[in-house]
Amino acid sequence: MTNPVLVEVTRGPLVESVHRGAVAVADARGALRLSLGNVERPIFPRSALKPIQAVPLIESGAADAFAVSDEELALACASHSGESQHTTRIAGWQERIGCSVADLACGPHRPLHEPTANAMIVRGEKWTPLHNNCSGKHTGFMTLARGLGAPVTNYQEHDHPVQRAVEATLKEMAGLNRNLPYGVDGCTVPNFAVPLAALARAMAQIADPSALPLGRADVRRRILAAMTDHPELVAGTGRPCTLLMRQNPRIAVKTGAEGVYIAILPELGFGVAVKVDDGASRAAETAIAAVLIALGALPDEGAAAGLARAPVLNTRGEQIGERRATAVLRYSS
Amino acid sequence: MTNPVLVEVTRGPLVESVHRGAVAVADARGALRLSLGNVERPIFPRSALKPIQAVPLIESGAADAFAVSDEELALACASHSGESQHTTRIAGWQERIGCSVADLACGPHRPLHEPTANAMIVRGEKWTPLHNNCSGKHTGFMTLARGLGAPVTNYQEHDHPVQRAVEATLKEMAGLNRNLPYGVDGCTVPNFAVPLAALARAMAQIADPSALPLGRADVRRRILAAMTDHPELVAGTGRPCTLLMRQNPRIAVKTGAEGVYIAILPELGFGVAVKVDDGASRAAETAIAAVLIALGALPDEGAAAGLARAPVLNTRGEQIGERRATAVLRYSS
Repeated sequence: MTNPVLVEVTRGPLVESVHRGAVAVADARGALRLSLGNVERPIFPRSALKPIQAVPLIESGAADAFAVSDEELALACASHSGESQHTTRIAGWQERIGCSVADLACGPHRPLHEPTANAMIVRGEKWTPLHNNCSGKHTGFMTLARGLGAPVTNYQEHDHPVQRAVEATLKEMAGLNRNLPYGVDGCTVPNFAVPLAALARAMAQIADPSALPLGRADVRRRILAAMTDHPELVAGTGRPCTLLMRQNPRIAVKTGAEGVYIAILPELGFGVAVKVDDGASRAAETAIAAVLIALGALPDEGAAAGLARAPVLNTRGEQIGERRATAVLRYSS
Repeated sequence: MTNPVLVEVTRGPLVESVHRGAVAVADARGALRLSLGNVERPIFPRSALKPIQAVPLIESGAADAFAVSDEELALACASHSGESQHTTRIAGWQERIGCSVADLACGPHRPLHEPTANAMIVRGEKWTPLHNNCSGKHTGFMTLARGLGAPVTNYQEHDHPVQRAVEATLKEMAGLNRNLPYGVDGCTVPNFAVPLAALARAMAQIADPSALPLGRADVRRRILAAMTDHPELVAGTGRPCTLLMRQNPRIAVKTGAEGVYIAILPELGFGVAVKVDDGASRAAETAIAAVLIALGALPDEGAAAGLARAPVLNTRGEQIGERRATAVLRYSS
C-alpha cells in the first residue's frame, strides 16, 4: 500500500516535488473518524510524544511535590526555540529540583530561534544542552525521577523507572497491550513506535478525557491547558505550533521530527496524527494545517491558510511556486 | 507509476522515513543504460543545469573574449558555499567585465559555509547577492550578455538573448525539439524542465563528446576539466560535490535543489541524473553516491561510502540509525 500524496510543491507550471503520508483522526472511544494511507504501520512520534511523556510527571505526584507550574508543564511538552523565555524558566526549574544543565542527558544544538543563535555567536558563547529544544522534557524527566525516588543519573535509559512510566502511560493511552519497539531520539531518550492510528487515539484521550476516572481526567486537562495557555513556550517566536495555537486557543498542536504532527481538539473530542513518509517538516506543517482547516478546528485564513498554501519564494522574495495540500486533504472533512 | 524507494532512514529497529525517486543513466548516443522509476516525467534540474548553462558562455566566444579562466568557469558551474575563495574570485571577474554585485539579479542569502556566515555575523555584516550560491552562474550570464552585445540588464528574463541561448543549448544537448516548460529558479533565472532521461543524455554529451564536431567537443571537455580541476570551487569546504569529486578527479558531480543530482562520467561515457520525489537533499546525496559506487565510478569507501550509508546521530554524537540506499540502488550495476 502506497500512501497518498498529501502535499505538493509547484514551480511555475509544474509540480516539482511531492510528499506522501498518512493521517489519522480518532475519538476518545478509539474510533477512527478519518484515515488516509497506512495508519497501522508503527511510526516514531518523536517530539509529538511529549504531551504523553508529561502525563506520568503529574500522575505520579512529582509535579505537585516539586511545585511544577503550568509554564513549566508547557515546557515539558515543548520543542522550544532556545529563546531566553525558555532557557531561563527551565534553568530555574532545574535549580528548584536540585539539578543543573550538567545533569541533562541531551546534547547541545544551535537554538532554533535565529536571533538568539546570532546573538550568542556575537558574544562568543557556545550552545549548551539547555538550548536543546527538548531540555524542558528532560527537566520533566528529572523531576519525575526525583518524585519516584529514583536516581536522576541515566534517566534516559530504557530500563530507568522514568522511561518505564512513560512506556506504560503510552501503552495505556494508545490502547496497546504489547511492549513497544523503540529507537533513541535525537535527545538520547527512548522514543516508542506506535501505529499512527494509536497515536491519534492517545491524543484523543487528552482531547476528551470524560470517560476516565476524575483524577486521571484532570491530569490530561492540565496538560492541555498548560499547552493552550502558553503557545509561545511550547515552540517559540514565529514557529508553526505557536502560530496555530494562537489562532484557536482551545486546541493544542505539536510537531515531531521526521514529518510528524499531532493535534488535540477538545471541542470535537478528536486526536489527530500526521506522518509524512519522507520526514519533511514543511509537508507535515502544511498537512496538519489543511486537516485542521478541513475539520473546522482552524479558520481558512491567517497562519493556518499560510501553511496549507504556502508561497514558494525566490531569493528576491518573489513568489515562484506554491506548497499546498492536495485535494485528498482539502476535502477530507 | 509510483517511483521506487531509493533511500531509507532507520532509527533503532525500524525504518523511520523513506525517499522515493528516479534514476537515469545514459550514454552519448542517447541510449538509457539504467533506468529506475519514471524518467520521462519533466523535472526541474535546478542547479544541476549549471554545466549546461555554462556551454553558451564558451561556445559564443564570450569566455575567450573576456579571458574567463578555468577557475571562473568552475564558479559558473557552481553552487558555491559563499567562502572568500568563491566571492573574491567572482567579484574580480565581475570587475573585469565592467559589472558589480549591483548588477546581479539574484537575491542575497546566508553563505552555505557556516564559519563564513558566523564570521559575518560577528562583524555585523549583511550577506549580499555575491554570497548567493549562484553568483558565479550569474556572472557567467552577464559575461555572455556582454559577449552577445546584449544589455546586461534583465539577463534573467526568459526572452533575453542569454536565456534564449541557454534553452537552445539544453534542447540540443538533451535531444528535445519542443519549447521547454520553465519555472523561475531560486536565483530568479528561468529553469527549464526536461525529463530525467533527457537530463542524463545531456550530461552524457559532456562525458563523451567524441561524436561532436571538434570545436564543440572542446567546449564540453573544457567545462568538465574546469569542474574536475576545481572541486572546491564547484561547491565548497566539506560539501558532498567537492568530497565526491576529490575521490575520483576524473568525474564531475553537481547537486540541484529539490533532490536533484547529476554526474558526468567520462571513463564510462555516461551521464547520470537523479531526482528524489520529495525534494530532499539528504536522499539525493545518498542516491548519487550509491549509484556511482554501483557503476564503479567511486570506491565503496571514504566520502562516497559515508553518503551511501550515513550514520544518523543524536545530539550527543551517538549513532542511533542509518540513512542508506536501498537494494534497488546497491545492486543496480
